[in-house]
Order: sequence, then C-alpha cells, then structure tokens
Amino acid sequence: MKPPITSLFEPRSIAVIGASQDRGKVGYSILKNILSGGFRGKIYPVNPRGGTVQGLPAYRDVEEIPAEVDVACIAIPARKVLAAVERCGRKGVKYGVVITSGFSEVGNTEEEKAIVQRAREYGMGILGPNIFGIYSAAASLNCTFGPEEVAPGRVGIITQSGAIGLAMIGKTAAENLGLSAMVSVGNKSDIDEADLLEYLVPQELTKIILMYIEGIKNGEKLVEHLKKATAVKPVIVIKSGRSKRGAMAAASHTGSLAGSDEVFDHIMRQCGVLRAEGIREAFDWCSFFSRNPLPRGENTLIITNGGGIGVLAADACEKYGLSLYDDTQKLKDAFSTVVPAYGSSKNPIDMTAEASSRDYEAAFETALNLDPVHAVLGLYCETAVFDRENLAAMISRNDERLKKGGKPVSFSLLGGENTARDIGVLEKGGVSVFDDVYQAVSPLGAMYFYHRHLHDRPGPPLTASIDVHAVETVVDGALKEDRTFLFAHEAQTLMGTAGIPVPRSALAGTLEEAVKIAEGIGYPVVMKVVSKDILHKSDVGGVMLDLLNRSEVIDAYQAIVGNALNAVPNAVIEGIEVTEMVQPGTEIIVGARRDKIFGPIVMVGLGGIYVEVMKDVSFRSFPLDRKEIIKMIKEIKSYPLLLGVRGEKTKDMDALAEVIVRLGSIILHCPRVSDIEINPLMVYEQGLGVKAVDIRVLIRKQP
Amino acid sequence: MKPPITSLFEPRSIAVIGASQDRGKVGYSILKNILSGGFRGKIYPVNPRGGTVQGLPAYRDVEEIPAEVDVACIAIPARKVLAAVERCGRKGVKYGVVITSGFSEVGNTEEEKAIVQRAREYGMGILGPNIFGIYSAAASLNCTFGPEEVAPGRVGIITQSGAIGLAMIGKTAAENLGLSAMVSVGNKSDIDEADLLEYLVPQELTKIILMYIEGIKNGEKLVEHLKKATAVKPVIVIKSGRSKRGAMAAASHTGSLAGSDEVFDHIMRQCGVLRAEGIREAFDWCSFFSRNPLPRGENTLIITNGGGIGVLAADACEKYGLSLYDDTQKLKDAFSTVVPAYGSSKNPIDMTAEASSRDYEAAFETALNLDPVHAVLGLYCETAVFDRENLAAMISRNDERLKKGGKPVSFSLLGGENTARDIGVLEKGGVSVFDDVYQAVSPLGAMYFYHRHLHDRPGPPLTASIDVHAVETVVDGALKEDRTFLFAHEAQTLMGTAGIPVPRSALAGTLEEAVKIAEGIGYPVVMKVVSKDILHKSDVGGVMLDLLNRSEVIDAYQAIVGNALNAVPNAVIEGIEVTEMVQPGTEIIVGARRDKIFGPIVMVGLGGIYVEVMKDVSFRSFPLDRKEIIKMIKEIKSYPLLLGVRGEKTKDMDALAEVIVRLGSIILHCPRVSDIEINPLMVYEQGLGVKAVDIRVLIRKQP
Repeated sequence: MKPPITSLFEPRSIAVIGASQDRGKVGYSILKNILSGGFRGKIYPVNPRGGTVQGLPAYRDVEEIPAEVDVACIAIPARKVLAAVERCGRKGVKYGVVITSGFSEVGNTEEEKAIVQRAREYGMGILGPNIFGIYSAAASLNCTFGPEEVAPGRVGIITQSGAIGLAMIGKTAAENLGLSAMVSVGNKSDIDEADLLEYLVPQELTKIILMYIEGIKNGEKLVEHLKKATAVKPVIVIKSGRSKRGAMAAASHTGSLAGSDEVFDHIMRQCGVLRAEGIREAFDWCSFFSRNPLPRGENTLIITNGGGIGVLAADACEKYGLSLYDDTQKLKDAFSTVVPAYGSSKNPIDMTAEASSRDYEAAFETALNLDPVHAVLGLYCETAVFDRENLAAMISRNDERLKKGGKPVSFSLLGGENTARDIGVLEKGGVSVFDDVYQAVSPLGAMYFYHRHLHDRPGPPLTASIDVHAVETVVDGALKEDRTFLFAHEAQTLMGTAGIPVPRSALAGTLEEAVKIAEGIGYPVVMKVVSKDILHKSDVGGVMLDLLNRSEVIDAYQAIVGNALNAVPNAVIEGIEVTEMVQPGTEIIVGARRDKIFGPIVMVGLGGIYVEVMKDVSFRSFPLDRKEIIKMIKEIKSYPLLLGVRGEKTKDMDALAEVIVRLGSIILHCPRVSDIEINPLMVYEQGLGVKAVDIRVLIRKQP
Repeated sequence: MKPPITSLFEPRSIAVIGASQDRGKVGYSILKNILSGGFRGKIYPVNPRGGTVQGLPAYRDVEEIPAEVDVACIAIPARKVLAAVERCGRKGVKYGVVITSGFSEVGNTEEEKAIVQRAREYGMGILGPNIFGIYSAAASLNCTFGPEEVAPGRVGIITQSGAIGLAMIGKTAAENLGLSAMVSVGNKSDIDEADLLEYLVPQELTKIILMYIEGIKNGEKLVEHLKKATAVKPVIVIKSGRSKRGAMAAASHTGSLAGSDEVFDHIMRQCGVLRAEGIREAFDWCSFFSRNPLPRGENTLIITNGGGIGVLAADACEKYGLSLYDDTQKLKDAFSTVVPAYGSSKNPIDMTAEASSRDYEAAFETALNLDPVHAVLGLYCETAVFDRENLAAMISRNDERLKKGGKPVSFSLLGGENTARDIGVLEKGGVSVFDDVYQAVSPLGAMYFYHRHLHDRPGPPLTASIDVHAVETVVDGALKEDRTFLFAHEAQTLMGTAGIPVPRSALAGTLEEAVKIAEGIGYPVVMKVVSKDILHKSDVGGVMLDLLNRSEVIDAYQAIVGNALNAVPNAVIEGIEVTEMVQPGTEIIVGARRDKIFGPIVMVGLGGIYVEVMKDVSFRSFPLDRKEIIKMIKEIKSYPLLLGVRGEKTKDMDALAEVIVRLGSIILHCPRVSDIEINPLMVYEQGLGVKAVDIRVLIRKQP
C-alpha cells in the first residue's frame, strides 16, 4: 500500500537530494524553482557538503532532517540513487521523485527494479525515474527543472515525454490555458498514469486532464481508472505511435511496448476518452472545454456572412460528428427578420456579405433565445461593408452571453491583418476563435463526443457462466501433448461447453452408423474420410458435399471408402465424418484474447477472406455492457450487412452479441486459453441464430 | 472565339460602367481601387450624368469613349446590364467584368443567358456576373470592391465564393504570401476556371494556382486544362461540399451542381491537383510551395531534440505519405559525431533535450551534406538548457542553406511565449514554421504528391476499337421498344462486340440441341427454363446447376420441362437456356458512365454484395494511360485480393485493365450508351482472364 497520492501533489515538506549552488546542475534548477514558485511547505536541501544552498541550511543526509519529509526529490547520479532511496525509506519519506536518468530507458532495468523493491519495503512510492519532476498548483509547488514561471489554471497534464512536457509548460502559459498540475511519469517504474488519476479526478482545480502517452504497461488498471475519470471530467489523450513507422520509433525510444494502436484507439473510445491527433488539437480541445459549458442537446447552428464558408463548415461538422439543427420551419420563423431576402434562414444561416455587426448581434441573440439550438458556430469573412472596428467587441459579448445561456460556441474569422489582430485579442480574452473552419469545428466535435458519453452511461457488464471445468479438461488434454493450440474437434467441444452453436457432426465407423448419424442431423450433410494417412482429402475423392437423402449417403460412403483405398491402398481409415452442411449466412469474425497490455479484449468484424484485406474490425475491453456491444458492432463499416442489404432481413444481432460475451467470458475465466477466433461465424436472420464454422483456439501452460 | 485572355488580366484600358462619387456605391469602390492600385493603362469612368468622377472626366456612355476599351467593368443595376453589354459590344470591348448580382444565383437565368448571347455576338467575353472583380499584379490592376491594399506576389487565386475571395485578399497580405492575380468567377456564365488557367499557367509571376470551387459546369474542359496546368506549376483546390450535408448546402447556395465529391476527388488526383481540406491547409501549402524548392528524391529526415515529438512526426509522415530515410548505416556514419550516445542516429535523429543551437546547426549541416537526404523536418521542444536567444537566427540560417541546397524544409517549434515570438519572426522572414507537428508535415506531404506527379508522366491514353455499328444496332433495338436499359442477352451481345468475355450460353429448342450446346460449351453447365409465363424459375424447379455430363443434361432437360409444365400447365416454353457454369474468382465491379459533369468516367472496385456496404471503389476520367489504370486499381482497399491472399496466385490484372479500357471506349464512342456496370466481373489467375457475370447497361435516346 502506497501513501495517499495527495502527499505527492500537496506535500507538507519536500527534501531536494542533490540540491546545489552550481547553476549548471539539475539540483540547482529544481530548488530554485521550488523557492521561486512559492511552495507553502517546508523545504530541505540535501547535499553531502552541508552548509547553505540557495540561502537555506543544507542537510548532509535526508535522515538528518529534524522533521517529517513527505516528498524527496532525487537529482543525483544514477549509481547513488538506490542508497538515497534506502535512506529516504528509513526516514519515512512518502514519495520519491526520481529525476535521474540512466535506468530502464538505457537497458539498466535491474537497478530500477531494485530501487522500486527497496522503496516498497518502506511503503514509499516512486515517481520516475527519468523525469523532469512535478508541478502542483494546489501546493504552489514547481518541483521541476523546467521554466521558472508556470501559469496556474485548470488543466492537469500527465506526460511520458520529458521534452514535450517541459515545452508544454511554456505553451500552456502562452496560450492562456494554465496548469492545475503537470507530472512527468518517465519510466513509470512504480507510479503510472492510473495512480495519478486518483488525485486529478476528484481534485477541484483540475477541470480537464490531458495525457501524453507513448506506451502503456498495465492497460487493465488504466482502463478502470479512465472509465471512472471520464464520468467526472473530460480526459484528452495524445498517443504517439499511431503509424507503423511511429510505433517502431516509439519502441526504440521508450522502454514500454507501443502495442496495437487500433486496439488502444477503440478502448479509449470505450472509456469515453478523447483522443487528439497531435498537440495542437489537444490544446484546442483543452481550451474549449475550459471555456465552454457542456451542451444540453445535439443541435448545432452555423451563422455566417458567406455561403461558401458555411458549406465548408457543414463539411467540417460532418467530419467531426456534429448534428446540424434541421427544423427549417422553426429556423425560418426565428431568423426571417434577421436574414435578408437573398440570404438563407436554413442552417447554415447565411446573412450574406452585406451583414454588419448589428446583424450578427441579432442573429446570435436569436440563436441564444431559440431553445432547440444547443451550440453555435460563428463564421465571418472580412468584407468591405462590415464595420470591423466593432467585430471583436461584438464577438466577445455574444460569446459570453451564449456561454452563460449554456450554449458552447466556437468562431472562425477569415481576413487580413485586422482580423488576425482581433483573433489574438479575443483568444486572450477567453473566446474560442480560430482562423480556420475545420479548426473551429474540431473542439466542438470533441465536446459532443464527450456529451454523448456522459448521456449514455453503461449498464451492468455482461458475462456468461462458463463450464470452466469442462474447458480445463480440454486444455489439459492438449497441453499434455505439448500443443499450444486445440484440434478442430477440441475447439468444437469448447464451443459446446460455452453454448456456442457449431455444425453437428459425428464419426461413423460403419455404413449403418453413417446413415443413422445423417438422419439424426437432418439433410443435407457433408461426408469426409478421416485417416491420418490421407492428408489431402479432396484430392483423393474423400469428400462429398450436399448429400440430400439416405441413398446419397449410402452411395457417398461406399464411394469415399473406395476412392480412399484406391488412392492410398494401405490407409487406416478411422471412420467417415458426417457433418451438417452449413447454410450460407453473413460471414462475421468474432474473437477474444488476453491482450498483453489490456487483458481480456473482444473483437468483431467482417469475416471470411475479407478480414485481412479490409481490416474492418472493432475491439473492446471485456467485460462490457450490452449497449457497448451494440456500439462495437455498429462501428464496423460492414454493419449494414447485418441490417440486411438487397431486401434481406435483419440478422440475429442478439445471437451475435451473445457469442461475443461467451468468448470474452472463456478468456476471462480460463487464463490458459489465450486466444479464440471464430471465422466465419455464420449469422442468420433474426431468430435463427448463428453457427461457428471455423474455430481457432490458442492455449498456454502458464497463465 | 473570345479575345486572348491576356486582355482580361492585362488590359491597356478599362471602363468602369457605374463609376460613382457616392462612397456607398460599388462603382465608387471599384474606381477608387483601380486608381489607388496604380493601374498603368487608361481609365474611363462611365456615368450617365457625365461630369467628373473621382477626378477623372466621366463619359455618359461607353461608346462615347474616344479610344479603344479592352475591359469594361459593369457595376449597375441588374436590369440595365444587358443594354450596357450591347453598347460594350458595339464599342468593341474585349471583356465585360459583370459585378452586378441578381441573375442565375437567384433564378434569373434567362437574363444571364441573354447577356452572354449578346456578348458572343460581338465576340466579347463575360466574367461573372455576381462577382467582386479581378485583381492582376502584372497590370497593377485592382478592379474589385475589396480591400484597397493588395500585396502582390506569387499565388494566383480563382474563387467561386465572393466572401471567401475578398477575405483571402487580406489574408494573403497578412500571411506574407502575396497575389499574382485574384479572380472572382461568380456564376461562370461564360468564362470559367479553365479559361482563366489559360492565362495563369504560362504566366511568369504566378508560381502556384489556388482555386476555391463550389460546383463545376464543364468538368471535361476543366480536367483537360488542369492536366496541362499541373505539368507546369502546382495547382491547389479547395472544394466545399465534401459531406452530404455540405453538398446540400452548396446546391442551395450556388447555381451549379455539386456533383459526387468522391468522383471529383479521384479525378483531381488523376490530374495531379492538390486538394486541400480547408483554407488553412491550402494557405500552408501555397506558402510552402512558394518558399521551397521541389525535392530531388523521396527521403525525408527528421531532426529533433525530443524523442516523443519525433514519434508524433513519424506518425504524421505516414499520414501525409512521406518516406523516411532508412539507411541506418549511412545515418550512423553521418550523425554519430553529432548525436550524443544516449540519443539516436536513426531517423528521427534524436539529439536529446541536451541539444543546443550549435548541435542543431551541426545536424542540419550534416543533413545538407548527406546526398541521399532530400527533405528535412526540423523539430524543437523548448528546454531549459537550449540557448533560446539563438533559436530564430539558427533556424533562419539553416532554412536558407537547405533550400539553396535543393532540400525543402519545414519546422515545428513547441514552447512558450518566446517560441511563439520566434515563430512569428521566422514566418515573416519566409521560413515554413509551425507550432504543431502535423501542420508542419502536411505541406511537405503535398509537395511530395506533386513531386511524384511530375516524375510519373502519363503515357499515351488507351482506347479500344469498338464495333460501334454493332453496338448501335443493339441500342436501336432496345430504344424501339422504349426501353432505357438492355436485356441480359443484349448486354451480353454488347460485351461480345467489345471483346469482353461472358459465360457462354445458348437457347436449346430440343433435347438434342441442349446436349449439343452443352458439349460445345464444355461441362459443367447450368440449365434454365426460358418462358415469359414463368417468372420465378427456381421456385418451380426450372433451374439445374452443376450438370457434369451428357446424361445429367438429358435428365435435367426432361426434369425442367416436366417441372415447368407441372407448375404452369399452359406455359409457353421458348426453350431451355444452357450456360457455362462460371467458376468462382475474385469478384470485382467495373463500370463506365457518362458523368453529368466530367463526361466519360470509369470505375473499379470490390464487387459482389460488398459494393454498397464497403464502397471500396475508385474513379477516373476516361481515356487514361496504363499507369493510371494500375494506380486506379491499386487505390482500392481490397487490392490485395487481386495480388492473391492466403497463398493464392496473382490475379489477371492485364485482363482487368483491358475490361476497364473497353467499357470506357464504349461510353466514349457510343454516346447513347450512358452507363455500363459489370458486377461481378470474375477475375481469375494471371493468364486465365476474366468473365463478366452480371451486366447492366443504361441507354438513352438523345446523347
């Protein structure tokens, strides 16, 4: 058990081990930043030479400090860190902030493990190593070697990259955004993002959380924490390594695994986390969330003085998932007095290039008072007739009124130097204003994603009860033969224990048995020779399809045996397999596996040979609730196939959802089953169920 | 024949019809802008009251002007425009620039047509109506009612939106970009984008062409001009109406058809045109092209002081289609002395957060001297140790050296106020520098698209010789019956005349004929009853599949006739169709049609039931060369199916390409065939050809 995480962010006292007078040293910068940052607790420089450091009495050893120490910031050479941690532990320090690099990031994993091990023995937590430190507005604590001046504010940032984090300190200040906290997690030897969320989620000052991630170590823990976090406040993530090349670069650059970006992306969506592409977008979103109320509904209204820019904005709205308000009668009633006859009172509201600031004012006021409008996008093209001296004030005023009225609002202004100046002034004044339509729409899109997440709370997670004992028996049998996979009939048994329908099948030793089995299954059936001496069954005439009745089964049995012995005279024939002939359906792939990073995950997608080519699949962390399963299925591009194309009926979504839950449950309850894939799963019309045609199962000795 | 387009951009004289002393009038602003813009030719105000306008003697009528008039700018009420055009025509004016609105954009199409008709009688060209005018740097002509000050420069802009165009005048100045020309095309009643390209493409001052398009009238003409243009200089297009909603808004907002955005997008790519998403991106690309040399090869190198930002940049490079230089040995040899031991001399070159401006200098110099590096991306995160007072000068110096060395370069700087200031200074100084990695990479991506276009010149366009007479005969037959489509056997005949293989098939009137046909085709065959009295052939047992030999054909014939007469006792049986049983192959869709906007176009994509769901298709304007056909096929996501998945052999791409050419040629040469679609076209292994299974052909009376 670690001490409460609040001790890390709001310590009553801090020791700086490696505090220095030497301006070139990291221990100098950190102590200087703590001092100039106005930290309200006690500060204890530690330096083996003792004396005075930056005006404070220095202790030769952390253990000499005559009072309690909540946090020790360690900025000394790597080889000395372990001993310092030992002393901190003895002293009862709650958290060690290990700035020093030269550990797992350069392959020195053992030393890092030893440090964490030692700290744990004393119940002490370790942040880092290989970090620039921690900033906490609540404690006025700037325990970093970054810029001296940090603007306090509403965004809490957790960053795995030191360089990006340090640069972000300046950027948040320059962009008038302000930090509630900034934590560098570095090698994440002990404390990771999930631990830090425990502080940031309930904390008052933090209105938005931004995380820069390169790789994740414990995905299951992170998912659990993120789900809780997004129920309380927006969480924005930048994860590098989206591309193959980027993932390679990330793997060489950090210790942790980059993982499949696609799985990460889908699971973040499941958690309600907003994933930004780059830093610009993430900052735009943070600003927008920090300045705007959440909308009360889905209807966005565009107000413009240029038709062309209105169309561009409508394009952007579709790209970012905004719904444009569409009640043309209500819009006409409300805007007919505001919009000139040659303009448009349809959405986008086009006030034409003749519009003045008073016309805009009237339009924004109408939007404010029109109840079904929930968010506003204001567009402006510089024109000759517009009274541009009034632009900034008009926008500022209406921005404030709309926000107060509970309506988020974003602006895009296109024009020359004057317009650029107005954008600068408005931006400083807290208005979300851009010089590009797409950039103006993106944050509103992010806000609507979050709005929908908040209004669509998950139900109870679904799991199916699995006959674990039966599964274990099958797995034991295969492991005894040193296999890492199951044979087809074993996989079918597994499906049977989980209640997933497979084609009925049995082995006939005699002609009479074959007929009996076929009659039991019902026609048509398929028959195949089973013999380890015959590998390519079709080639020797050992397979017969579409057998329609008793007499065809009799003919086929004789033909197959004859063909087989004709081709391989001494073949030992173990029997003839008689199998239900599977009716064609919509071919879907369903999978479940224990992901290295995220633990149990499930997958659904377009099956058959198209899996590899179209890669039309979606992933989720398991378990999950029914709504999320439906979302997951709807996300695949080929979802219309399940709704039925070309006059077909809707397919059996319930049965498909059930298979997803059952596969996930096997993975959850049977740790030695690492991977299950059904491809194709034939999905039939509503009410007619599914059939698992081809099943692959991977197993392992050690869970 | 219109007068040379140079007369419009570089007139020796201009008359302003509607020139005014009244500051509220458009005719005032235009004359004022012409005067203050320093136009070097003669200026003639025309106003029925005569006298003096803005210090110049005014003429009551354009015909009173005692000298030649090249351009007449018309800014008078709509109802008076036609008469003014008539007088201009009589006067011998070469181009009328009709500012006035109130024509086809508000439904007044007749008046607009009359104006163009009248102008044509006099050999005069019409720009507009419904425009803000024309600016031309070569003539120092600001014949617009936009801003008085226009920054001359290297970008020629053609815009269909007045508001966006006017705002862009200011924006180009504010962004230090500068205009060579700006033309508002408005309703495009006569002169369109293609006509204007005739001036801008050969013109010296114009280095880049930017077009804002809402809808296209004559796509074939535009394509022809764009192909020529991109061979000479980059062309960037913004087209609104990407989304369904946007397209709706565009259609209500302009007269012209928005068309299918997907077709537009693919055809622009075929023309080598760069399509920007929004105005920000378009401006970034224009700036970048105006400042940077074209690269000599594909290898981009990233130089960074932060690993994380390097990974983000690698992601962005993949998104925008850049190739990262990958020769690790050469990179190691070149950069080992520049990069510290704990950095990385792999691409991205990571100089670590310890890097100073001197380290960057060394790295950029190495990149300059390393021959196989063709483009550079410079990344910077603000750090505590960097000597930031040297940042701007260092970047400026290296930017210049790299460009001089023929290597385009883009920068992204992340940091606080100082960094923002440096970005501003560098930007003004002509450096392509951004505060976001994705934004920095996007223009380089655009440049590489253009680089590839220039280095991959098209071969001769392919067409197939079509037996037009045979096609016409089939079409005549169908049109006589008032049909707008062909029956299956007619469509098959059409394929036959074009040499596209279809399943062999013939109608048997007797059992003996059926056997003869089957033996001719080869087994297996399919047999179907043909009778207009029997609609659902399968339901009555009128279809038999997979008939393997003579005796099965005999049995099937008797069974089919028996079943048919049993089900519909008085049915008139025209015969039994005997058809080759088509072997399964890769199911592709191929189409060709006469597009309303672009004329003959061809399409290829994933066929079968997946067409509607996956929409995995690509389009091209026809005719096209072989390389472009291959590109078109490679663009579809399911292309790997044609390469062969799961150990299959490569499919017959030559035969597929040939079908595309033949379908396109039918459309090209037979104007009454408006639409052909083959789905599926079975594509077999290399050398085994294709087979057109299902063919739909639409026809029309009037081409």
